[in-house]
Amino acid sequence: MNYDEIFDKAIDRLHAEGRYRVFIDILRNKGKFPNARCFAGHNGPKPITVWCSNDYLCMGQHPKVIAAMEEALHDVGAGSGGTRNIGGNTHYHVELESELASLHGKGAALLFTSGYVSNEATLATLAKILPGCIIYSDELNHASMIAGIRNSGCEKRVWRHNDLAHLEELLANDDPALPKLIAFESVYSMDGDIAPIAAICDLADKYNAITYCDEVHAVGMYGEHGGGITERDEVADRVTIIEGTLGKAFGVMGGYIAADQKIVDVIRSYAPGFIFTTSLSPVLVAGVLASVKHLKQSGEERAAQQANAARLKELFAEAGLPVMQSVTHIVPLMVGDPVKAKKISDTLLAEYGAYVQPINFPTVPRGTERLRFTPGPQHDEEMMQDLTNALVEIWGRMELKVAQAA
Amino acid sequence: MNYDEIFDKAIDRLHAEGRYRVFIDILRNKGKFPNARCFAGHNGPKPITVWCSNDYLCMGQHPKVIAAMEEALHDVGAGSGGTRNIGGNTHYHVELESELASLHGKGAALLFTSGYVSNEATLATLAKILPGCIIYSDELNHASMIAGIRNSGCEKRVWRHNDLAHLEELLANDDPALPKLIAFESVYSMDGDIAPIAAICDLADKYNAITYCDEVHAVGMYGEHGGGITERDEVADRVTIIEGTLGKAFGVMGGYIAADQKIVDVIRSYAPGFIFTTSLSPVLVAGVLASVKHLKQSGEERAAQQANAARLKELFAEAGLPVMQSVTHIVPLMVGDPVKAKKISDTLLAEYGAYVQPINFPTVPRGTERLRFTPGPQHDEEMMQDLTNALVEIWGRMELKVAQAA
Repeated sequence: MNYDEIFDKAIDRLHAEGRYRVFIDILRNKGKFPNARCFAGHNGPKPITVWCSNDYLCMGQHPKVIAAMEEALHDVGAGSGGTRNIGGNTHYHVELESELASLHGKGAALLFTSGYVSNEATLATLAKILPGCIIYSDELNHASMIAGIRNSGCEKRVWRHNDLAHLEELLANDDPALPKLIAFESVYSMDGDIAPIAAICDLADKYNAITYCDEVHAVGMYGEHGGGITERDEVADRVTIIEGTLGKAFGVMGGYIAADQKIVDVIRSYAPGFIFTTSLSPVLVAGVLASVKHLKQSGEERAAQQANAARLKELFAEAGLPVMQSVTHIVPLMVGDPVKAKKISDTLLAEYGAYVQPINFPTVPRGTERLRFTPGPQHDEEMMQDLTNALVEIWGRMELKVAQAA
Repeated sequence: MNYDEIFDKAIDRLHAEGRYRVFIDILRNKGKFPNARCFAGHNGPKPITVWCSNDYLCMGQHPKVIAAMEEALHDVGAGSGGTRNIGGNTHYHVELESELASLHGKGAALLFTSGYVSNEATLATLAKILPGCIIYSDELNHASMIAGIRNSGCEKRVWRHNDLAHLEELLANDDPALPKLIAFESVYSMDGDIAPIAAICDLADKYNAITYCDEVHAVGMYGEHGGGITERDEVADRVTIIEGTLGKAFGVMGGYIAADQKIVDVIRSYAPGFIFTTSLSPVLVAGVLASVKHLKQSGEERAAQQANAARLKELFAEAGLPVMQSVTHIVPLMVGDPVKAKKISDTLLAEYGAYVQPINFPTVPRGTERLRFTPGPQHDEEMMQDLTNALVEIWGRMELKVAQAA
């Protein structure tokens, strides 16, 4: 048994496919974001513009968020010092859970250290608690949901992306007496499309299933109070469990679920990924609390971000760049090849100071490698025009496919 | 299918066993820890002394840590804004990984959002990369290691706690050609005993296995530079992968592994729990960096904490309280019943303002429910004597078993 050889081969496979990942080393400039400093391959920090942040609304630099974190840091210190059960349950955690429950109109909410953990822990635990449970999973569900479903060991049916007829076919095929859970996302972050939530809930009613909706790319972003697509579409009360993140539109870090009190109590009491881990730092929780409260009453950031996303799609389309259909704030450009996607990204960073990460397998299916832009409320017209011009130049230089004329 | 009924039953089981968990709602007082404010069951915050924090060295309130976090907060903002691969790789992350690699004398290190995730993701991924891998797991390993092993789907052999003969028996029984991984902890946090690491490495050499050592209760706490038991015992170079937390002795939040560059590259490239999650907030990372650097050159906190732990064990033993054998900083008092353990804890908090959480199943085996005290460098003689007197009074009132006379 030669361990080194096996590890070498694992890494070689990535190089051979052109999808070995190099992390770009940056520091954001608070108050000036999307401006940042880049360290990779330079002798000193070089200014760049970030085009691929999931801090969609720049709440990570919002004065209210910074002030709340600073206050907590000086009031209670750096970390929580324990699990939620053993010394790590601070008053901030209790308050934030109450705020998130109210955001989604649910009886309770539960914090996790990340959105990944909230999906993995909740799905794995639910399916173990419900004997014989079958999970119906949209084929484009995030890796963390897939991990939770796999780790639950339950029966799984994968339905074609957003295909209600296929979902119904699968539901109708199974024993009506068995517990059923339909798991899906509201906004699919790599394509930018949206699930037909009301229609999914109709099917759940018809087949006596419960529903689990991942809103990580929608909370803070959609709905009058930032409650996500379930708020916008007025279906939050029909979805059994809403899951969200605190690390994207809310600008900080962490994840949560909101559901009725009983379900939250079950997950709180049985999920190893919740029980056996140091709770979120109270500093982060204080920041999120300020962010959620702000976005509940302010629609300004959401409006500016949607306007900029629409404008960038327009500029890309006018320039003949292959921008993918997206009804949301996500602006994906299809490349279809991991090596070319990386080359475009490298050129943009080195020559134009524009940072957008190539998205490759396993984040998206092979053959659909892309660049994914997420303009925020503070990307201005000039930045967007410069980016478009740079891409047009690179597209020409590399002789890449352009979009069909409209 | 009545979902509510199933959820009700799941919660009823916990009440029936006396192990339904009530989280104590507190706020620590920075600069005055172990002093804190308690919210539970009171009209306003009530001062308490915390006896069960895993912020073992009070680094969560160290001025260097607070200053570093404040600086990062103002320099780069609240969150990282993305996964390590997509916009969330800050210069702080790169620096901390280099610092942690150096702490353990390894070629590289990798940050995770928690110690739980670092164990789960690393073990699950390693065992999938190594075809036919068998994992040998100490029976008292932490839930996060058990989750990783289970989720890997590989063959598992459980060896009796710290029992080298049993471990060797299991190793010798398996095909010498198959990859093998021995997984264990250095300090077992609920009993306070220590693994015979050098002897485990001897067996690993003999049977061509790799080793995985969870040092979460030891990093920052043992060894001249806080490198853990592997540093103290001079065996860090013999352990293949060392895993640690940033949320206990280092006082903040997060987890990591340190290993040779190749293994870290494999985990970085293949572990879903690392890839698909927003990276640690740079504010936390900056705080940890200050904490690790401080504890590398200062042994003062370690010495004071060890002295206080020894003193509390002495006071408990002299008072006839059933303190468990522990060769480390952990001071466990055996109760052996979940209802009684909770009653003692409730009485301590309500009548004496002393907060120690009862530890029950599934954190410890049924029938070994206990109170677990973790005195830090700032618990003084008076606090320890008051605590001992309170326990003696409660022990008498509840007619609990006392220890055998020495």
